[in-house]
Amino acid sequence: VSDGDAGRLVERARGGDLRALARLVSLIEDGAPELRQIMRALAPATGRARVIGLTGAPGVGKSTITGALVKEYRSQGHRIGVLAVDPSSPFTGGALLGDRIRMQDHATDASVFIRSMASRGQLGGLAAATPQALRVLDAAGFDLILIETVGVGQAEVEIASLADSTIVLVAPGMGDAIQAAKAGILEVADVFAVNKADRPQAQQTVRDLRNMIALAPAAEGPQWKPPIVATVATTGEGVPELAARLDAHWSWLADTGERDRRRLARAREEVAALAVAALRQRMGRLPGGSGLDEVAGQVADGKLDPYAAADQLIGTLVTAKD
Amino acid sequence: VSDGDAGRLVERARGGDLRALARLVSLIEDGAPELRQIMRALAPATGRARVIGLTGAPGVGKSTITGALVKEYRSQGHRIGVLAVDPSSPFTGGALLGDRIRMQDHATDASVFIRSMASRGQLGGLAAATPQALRVLDAAGFDLILIETVGVGQAEVEIASLADSTIVLVAPGMGDAIQAAKAGILEVADVFAVNKADRPQAQQTVRDLRNMIALAPAAEGPQWKPPIVATVATTGEGVPELAARLDAHWSWLADTGERDRRRLARAREEVAALAVAALRQRMGRLPGGSGLDEVAGQVADGKLDPYAAADQLIGTLVTAKD
Repeated sequence: VSDGDAGRLVERARGGDLRALARLVSLIEDGAPELRQIMRALAPATGRARVIGLTGAPGVGKSTITGALVKEYRSQGHRIGVLAVDPSSPFTGGALLGDRIRMQDHATDASVFIRSMASRGQLGGLAAATPQALRVLDAAGFDLILIETVGVGQAEVEIASLADSTIVLVAPGMGDAIQAAKAGILEVADVFAVNKADRPQAQQTVRDLRNMIALAPAAEGPQWKPPIVATVATTGEGVPELAARLDAHWSWLADTGERDRRRLARAREEVAALAVAALRQRMGRLPGGSGLDEVAGQVADGKLDPYAAADQLIGTLVTAKD
Repeated sequence: VSDGDAGRLVERARGGDLRALARLVSLIEDGAPELRQIMRALAPATGRARVIGLTGAPGVGKSTITGALVKEYRSQGHRIGVLAVDPSSPFTGGALLGDRIRMQDHATDASVFIRSMASRGQLGGLAAATPQALRVLDAAGFDLILIETVGVGQAEVEIASLADSTIVLVAPGMGDAIQAAKAGILEVADVFAVNKADRPQAQQTVRDLRNMIALAPAAEGPQWKPPIVATVATTGEGVPELAARLDAHWSWLADTGERDRRRLARAREEVAALAVAALRQRMGRLPGGSGLDEVAGQVADGKLDPYAAADQLIGTLVTAKD
């Protein structure tokens, strides 16, 4: 697309054209050069959407809960965007070996936009692409955005932390709560959902979580005690309560000033990720003799330690003309 | 520790003192200020160890295979270091809720050093801490180092790519091979191990993998076709063959020049990660009015788009005195 096309694409997306919206997300995934124009055009219309993160290990039922939450919030009149940044999500891998898309109930509903995210050429990977896709949906008038991530790995935890409210989903048995604790995702939970609550060990999992919450050191700032909701996503059991707890957290965020604080933190991470990625790119093309390849070669040969090499590189970077 | 202590610690670790070694890894996890001295002292002694990465989804048997490989290579006279950077690993989460450490066979063997890695204060997180821990083990004379990571998430894939040879472990059934494909870990495999090969669907998983390998686009540079080894880690079945395939890959790396190329790439990533983390830190403390908080605030308010904010930030950064 040309620059003018980028502007028109933004206008069409803001006017409710889902195909334009999908095209914008693809441009984000590809790291297209027009992103600068697109983000400039979007900026004044952003900052309205409420963002809910959903994370948990593969197999706990994230996609089914996402579908149930979409249905619940849709019935309350919200326009809902879903971004799946889970590499194990059936949304993400849809084309591969014929996974079934479970969201087909909503596929023809113009008030629901569902999109899996990949990172093909994007500076900074999914950590940069996801907030940009958020901006697009936000500006297009989706007032509630669900981000689904798999709860293993640092990048996934960081993406979860983009949200205003984060649901951590665990399933009974199989040590899921313990796995979650190890992966550091308990700390990001605003609401816990114990899914597959019709299984025998569900009560034990709820107790384990309650103990872990009680033992957790108090965070700084206003205190919120994450509630635990039992759900059976396949039947919808517990989903209205889950939504109610999320709504309570949303109110709490506003009342305490946490909402603004989280949004500032989100913008800070987004800007820093872009700046860091741009600097990383500059490092790769510094003039010969002092660039990344040269200092890395000296490190590989044991002639220079990595800190001294990084110092040299930064020295070159801040004095070089880009 | 003081600077002098750092030097003595390095000497003791190089002399075979496992407690000094453990202390050095803790300093790395903590991002201690002495790391600069430590890395400078270590640099001339590094670059000798052979690094094997092992990755796969939770539950495929990574820790058991690691134990079996340690036993196999130990019997060949190697000194072996193990770094577990898997948040779901029983090594990593050992203290939590009394997980059993399966490696106790080797706990009293001075030629085996097993350590889980966490990232508490380290600049750049595990992506920076892991290569530093590698350097410590390398300089201390461990000639074979196994890095265990969970195969979900970008950070984990990057850590796997630190290795000279990477094993991707899958288990029959449960769509593990497909999950692996989605997470992008198939591309990093030099050797596949289908563990739990005594299960009925094992042959199907081997066939699936063979098809995926056949369909994969050819990478640039010298070609290596990843072999598939069937293992039963609990009995040790297939482990000698796995080691033999790894040895064949190690020879191939040397013969083709790939070994040097991979090591240069590893050094490049390590230096870039440190430089980027240092720049990220500088961003947080730029003089008032033009720092990260200020531009992020304008982004949160929709007055500035994130790219323009990142440009401003970089402009300030490269002209500011640190």
